[in-house]
Amino acid sequence: EMNRIKHKLISLSYLLSDWMFLALLGVAVAFISILVDMMVFSFQEIQRKTVSIYNIYGSDQSYLLWGCGLLGWCGYMIGLVAASACFVHYVAPQAIGSGIPEMKTIIRGVILVDYLTLKTLVSKIFGVAMALGSGVPIGKMGPFVHIASVVANQMCLLAAKFDSAYREESRRMECLAAACAVGVACTFSSPVGGVLFSIEVTTMYFSVRSYWRGFFAACCGATTIRLLRAYVVETEVTVSAFYQTSFRPDAFSVDELPLFALLGLLCGILGAGYISLYRCVVLFLRNNQYAKMVFQRHWIVYPIVISCIFSVVSYPHGLGMFSTGRIKFGTNLRDFFANCSFIVTSSDDLVCGAEIYSHWLNRGNILLLLFLFVLVHFIFSIISFTLPVPSGVFLPVFVLGAAIGRFYGEIIGLALEDIHIIHPGIYAIVGAAAFSASVTHTVSVSVMIFEITGQLHFILPVMISVMLSNAVCAYLQPSFFDTIIKIKHLPFLPDIPPSNNLVHTTYAEHIMVTPVKFITKITTYNEIREAVQTGLRLFPVVDSKNSQMLIGTVSRRYLTVLLNGKIGDHPRKVEAEKRV
Amino acid sequence: EMNRIKHKLISLSYLLSDWMFLALLGVAVAFISILVDMMVFSFQEIQRKTVSIYNIYGSDQSYLLWGCGLLGWCGYMIGLVAASACFVHYVAPQAIGSGIPEMKTIIRGVILVDYLTLKTLVSKIFGVAMALGSGVPIGKMGPFVHIASVVANQMCLLAAKFDSAYREESRRMECLAAACAVGVACTFSSPVGGVLFSIEVTTMYFSVRSYWRGFFAACCGATTIRLLRAYVVETEVTVSAFYQTSFRPDAFSVDELPLFALLGLLCGILGAGYISLYRCVVLFLRNNQYAKMVFQRHWIVYPIVISCIFSVVSYPHGLGMFSTGRIKFGTNLRDFFANCSFIVTSSDDLVCGAEIYSHWLNRGNILLLLFLFVLVHFIFSIISFTLPVPSGVFLPVFVLGAAIGRFYGEIIGLALEDIHIIHPGIYAIVGAAAFSASVTHTVSVSVMIFEITGQLHFILPVMISVMLSNAVCAYLQPSFFDTIIKIKHLPFLPDIPPSNNLVHTTYAEHIMVTPVKFITKITTYNEIREAVQTGLRLFPVVDSKNSQMLIGTVSRRYLTVLLNGKIGDHPRKVEAEKRV
Repeated sequence: EMNRIKHKLISLSYLLSDWMFLALLGVAVAFISILVDMMVFSFQEIQRKTVSIYNIYGSDQSYLLWGCGLLGWCGYMIGLVAASACFVHYVAPQAIGSGIPEMKTIIRGVILVDYLTLKTLVSKIFGVAMALGSGVPIGKMGPFVHIASVVANQMCLLAAKFDSAYREESRRMECLAAACAVGVACTFSSPVGGVLFSIEVTTMYFSVRSYWRGFFAACCGATTIRLLRAYVVETEVTVSAFYQTSFRPDAFSVDELPLFALLGLLCGILGAGYISLYRCVVLFLRNNQYAKMVFQRHWIVYPIVISCIFSVVSYPHGLGMFSTGRIKFGTNLRDFFANCSFIVTSSDDLVCGAEIYSHWLNRGNILLLLFLFVLVHFIFSIISFTLPVPSGVFLPVFVLGAAIGRFYGEIIGLALEDIHIIHPGIYAIVGAAAFSASVTHTVSVSVMIFEITGQLHFILPVMISVMLSNAVCAYLQPSFFDTIIKIKHLPFLPDIPPSNNLVHTTYAEHIMVTPVKFITKITTYNEIREAVQTGLRLFPVVDSKNSQMLIGTVSRRYLTVLLNGKIGDHPRKVEAEKRV
Repeated sequence: EMNRIKHKLISLSYLLSDWMFLALLGVAVAFISILVDMMVFSFQEIQRKTVSIYNIYGSDQSYLLWGCGLLGWCGYMIGLVAASACFVHYVAPQAIGSGIPEMKTIIRGVILVDYLTLKTLVSKIFGVAMALGSGVPIGKMGPFVHIASVVANQMCLLAAKFDSAYREESRRMECLAAACAVGVACTFSSPVGGVLFSIEVTTMYFSVRSYWRGFFAACCGATTIRLLRAYVVETEVTVSAFYQTSFRPDAFSVDELPLFALLGLLCGILGAGYISLYRCVVLFLRNNQYAKMVFQRHWIVYPIVISCIFSVVSYPHGLGMFSTGRIKFGTNLRDFFANCSFIVTSSDDLVCGAEIYSHWLNRGNILLLLFLFVLVHFIFSIISFTLPVPSGVFLPVFVLGAAIGRFYGEIIGLALEDIHIIHPGIYAIVGAAAFSASVTHTVSVSVMIFEITGQLHFILPVMISVMLSNAVCAYLQPSFFDTIIKIKHLPFLPDIPPSNNLVHTTYAEHIMVTPVKFITKITTYNEIREAVQTGLRLFPVVDSKNSQMLIGTVSRRYLTVLLNGKIGDHPRKVEAEKRV
């Protein structure tokens, strides 16, 4: 009896230590996330201050100050991008890129060398902080999936010293799966969507057990993030959502659902275009001889050139004034999601506030500006992913989707101005969900968007458009992450074929060899020799050439033996000797 | 080339037909759900009218009218329960109970006869409508999982006539998995939570692919439900959530989180108690000789007796006035979730409205009433599940959890009246989530509660308490559905052991046989004979009794052969003959 109780206690302590491990993982990644956020924030603050010189002394609009501002702005951006690239290059180049494709490969059982070491962790944390700080349109979700996985791996190695259970491969894999969930959850503090998203992008099959573990770890991480944001980071004061929206339940009517469906279709097509454009850019950089000559020989040239172009274009007092260069990338999500219309002036409560107005509206034609924003970020975000720095895909795609949705919503609002009141903010949310869902091939984005905005009213339009955009893009292209896996030549497990459909649409005629080589009673040796040389292994024997009734089969090996016995070297020699 | 295009078109048409199938499944189940809702609504309306006779003519408070009202009330309830039980008994007894345990078994590959036939469908639909209409505290989620599965199965059989793909077993299983998601989603119109809940309660492992399919079908179902509720059923006018709440983001402060954690722990313990009490009741009814004598011989007696007791207790003008018998079961969720306090009167905006006040407050001590509500429903909902009618587990448990949470919240609010403003409604929501999560062993309830209430502000407390209650209850008891599976002696796959923990806490000493039987050079025939008779298959051969150094092993079979050769019947006979 004592033994049984002791056994139970030991088992309980193991259980507790397991959950403690997961909780610790969540908290640790949350702290790293806040650390990175603070670094990024201070980097961007310095940049704002640099560029504000022009504002302070710039009342006389001198060209000198304008130039100084430009120099400071560009230098800062180029410097940070180059620093990030150099740091990552020399510390651990495994940190380059998103990390989700690599984790997908690792969770499928492939061992990628040095991807989960402490060195990679350091490289990724500071690399992504500098890259984000520079203002290049990249996200932090992918890198955080990678960071969380490295943390989990290192914690496993550490724990293995005290508890042999952590030495097992299956346990390590479970921890990595949970870590992916934590990584996503810690980006937007969205535990549920985080778990589902990580499952969708990294696995094909999974157990309910590891879903629970991921959920728990993600909850710990998200809770820590929210508490830290409330108490430590002074920019926020509540434990509410990241981009809390304020729509009323009647912000859209059922009649608008077809419009949302159309937006979903549009986002699906654009998403497929986005993925294929990315593939083209990467393959161009890899195969074009000039690109090869310059960029592959001197790897540092490429990030400098790109960041130079991007910084010049986004300079707030130059071209950037047309594309909201003055506010941080990502912050304009608040503008897109705002419950007001940029254009419509018919009803007073829909007109946007002064702050948003200052970002966008005093620059002329707002529709043109939005279109330019979409176009510029469509191209620049794709190019940013090709930089040799840690970079996430989700946020840029999400912002791009929001801009597309806002653009679509504003146009609809303008077209139906007299008939129906449209809230373009809802369209921005739906667009963000649909576009990011289509590019990543996930439906859990619809859960994430509820957690990001803290509202659920728009569940119907979000669901409809996410399903549609997903279906369209999945039909046209593999997901963005699978594309990266293919481009990087990582071991790629193809998707499970859409089972029964393909099985039932593949007929024998699709795989059969035609015309059929066959052997009859009157086939000559010569014809048999030719038939044997075709490489087929088995030949049908038919009654006659006309009826083609199958009598049996004969293998190439047997035919060859027979043939050698009749017209091979030996019988020929015999025949020759006989004739001589 | 033409062939390839044709092939692609065929493949596309198959794909579309697949998705059309899923959409149709969702829409069909949604229609059935609305149909059942309307039946239940009209049943309950009739009951209200019957009992309102007393109100109309009751100004003189005559005992006769009071008795007539009681008779009408009780007769109606007993009649409906008995009708439901008879209908189900004669049409298809497979419809009795929840359906989720059976679906769990079926999805694991066991074939249960007649569980997915059209007859069962009819039996379940009308059985559950009558049972719900009677006012017994049961839910409709479990039955709807079953109904959706039958619909899916029948649709598969129908589709198989046109498309051979639907004849495959794997395809049918995929459809059933999607159907479970649809069934849950159509109960509360909660697609995301529905998919996750159905996955958690029915499977152990699942593919991302079937998660997508379930998600799509559930979305179609939930959308249809919302649209139908908005346009067809006149009781509702918007496409909003079922129990839309109206909390402000600051309805709870971070300091309250430990209180929520405590509520989670409490719900976990109560949930375990709930499950074990249910098991005791069922086993009592099955094994007690008196219960056996009365109820098993005359199956109709049991539902009549139980519904009689329940109707007397819940008569609105009798004891029922203390337990809100006047309003439908399930409707009191609105009271529990209301953003006001039943007791606290310090701040004006927290005092409840007149309607809720009429339900609860004019009956004296509200805390006592709440406690009675919890107690009565704790027992009655358990007894209701033992009735031979279709009955769901989720809603009763959910309401019970809300009552527990509201009770807890009101007490906390009273205790901290001077220090801190408490919103007991939040506690009711957290309680509902935590208690139903613990009884069903799911974490996806936390997603469902967001969809049911249409708000996300309370994500932190809900997550924390759900995780805690779940962990506590999972440690103490198997889930409610697994308990039913065990009680019904359905083929039960045990849970995957908490892998590495158990592996590392089970030592050889836990399974070894002791003391060890061994054989030495000087073991006598007699000892060997005794050893062979112990039933062990293999014996260690040791150096000597003292050193116990292992030399090798010898099998029982070999020992028996040797023994027979030396002291068996034959050598004995030989020896005997020799001696003679």
